[in-house]
Amino acid sequence: MTHPDPLTKLIEQLQRLPGIGAKSAQRLAYHILKTPREEVDRLAQAMYEVKERITYCSTCSNITDVDPCFFCTSPSRDHRAICVVEEPENVNGVEKTRQYNGLYHVLMGALSPLHGVGPDDLKIKDLLARVADGGVQEVILATNPNVEGEATAIYLAKLLKPLGVKVTRIAMGVPVGSDLEYADDVTMQRAMEGRREL
Amino acid sequence: MTHPDPLTKLIEQLQRLPGIGAKSAQRLAYHILKTPREEVDRLAQAMYEVKERITYCSTCSNITDVDPCFFCTSPSRDHRAICVVEEPENVNGVEKTRQYNGLYHVLMGALSPLHGVGPDDLKIKDLLARVADGGVQEVILATNPNVEGEATAIYLAKLLKPLGVKVTRIAMGVPVGSDLEYADDVTMQRAMEGRREL
Repeated sequence: MTHPDPLTKLIEQLQRLPGIGAKSAQRLAYHILKTPREEVDRLAQAMYEVKERITYCSTCSNITDVDPCFFCTSPSRDHRAICVVEEPENVNGVEKTRQYNGLYHVLMGALSPLHGVGPDDLKIKDLLARVADGGVQEVILATNPNVEGEATAIYLAKLLKPLGVKVTRIAMGVPVGSDLEYADDVTMQRAMEGRREL
Repeated sequence: MTHPDPLTKLIEQLQRLPGIGAKSAQRLAYHILKTPREEVDRLAQAMYEVKERITYCSTCSNITDVDPCFFCTSPSRDHRAICVVEEPENVNGVEKTRQYNGLYHVLMGALSPLHGVGPDDLKIKDLLARVADGGVQEVILATNPNVEGEATAIYLAKLLKPLGVKVTRIAMGVPVGSDLEYADDVTMQRAMEGRREL
């Protein structure tokens, strides 16, 4: 009974967002209370625009406001390489490296028998079709470095190799800027296995 | 160019919120993208409701959806005590202690000559009028434990004491659950000054 009703409702809605706990939700709600109406309008409009205008690319399944997407239609990207990721947000992670200039393919998840996610639930057929169409020389498997991502990468490699394409997996090892002391056993093992001559 | 336009706009809007950095804004935007339209509607509606239905209590300046507010009209609260806070969100902080059953008065800020906030910019006249009306026996000054809050408390005490009311200030000292090692000098000094016999 300490908050007026509409504020309580807003705090409840905000707490449904990922990474927003009770304290953050309260701080945000009080902020919105003090914010001019036009600013709140801009935020609400931006949310609706995202819902209305963003779709998935019919080629690579990445999010886009034009179909096919920017990457698939760009003449300046290298159409001989496809980087396979689990989620649309992962595309941004790879782009930020500024090391990759090829295309993408978003699987929309990873194989996870425990959660009932099988090959037909992912955009695997589309990927195989793209490779079978020809022109692709390398498929980089950038699924997550966890059990599901690894299983998905191994599964995809088995399907892709017979198509005569080079299949690679992103390196796993100790993260840059971290301290070896905090690396877990499996990561350390991968770092040793993947060691390179200098 | 890595995000479609509407998503970039939403990320920009989200980053304007307090405590939301670039990474959180991106995570939230992708979440909203995946969220059903009805859920987004509920959040947007909750924001608008807060803007439209919440006003300030004409007596204590706390936020409310009815005027006068819940506290000012409640027969179960002790109308002989007024707790003075800077912002509406501070009311909730005091309420959570479950130790206080009196009324509130929200100043809407603190004295800050550097930021051009003088006595006339705060709800000080209303407070003095409430005390002058009689019935109030104690005014608890719960302004922030910083320079502005302290100055405001001292200023208010000078105005309130001649009205024949008991004026108290919340205790300052080392926070519960913390380690003395991390207490700053001023806090430690306050903790020593405010020591009590056991």
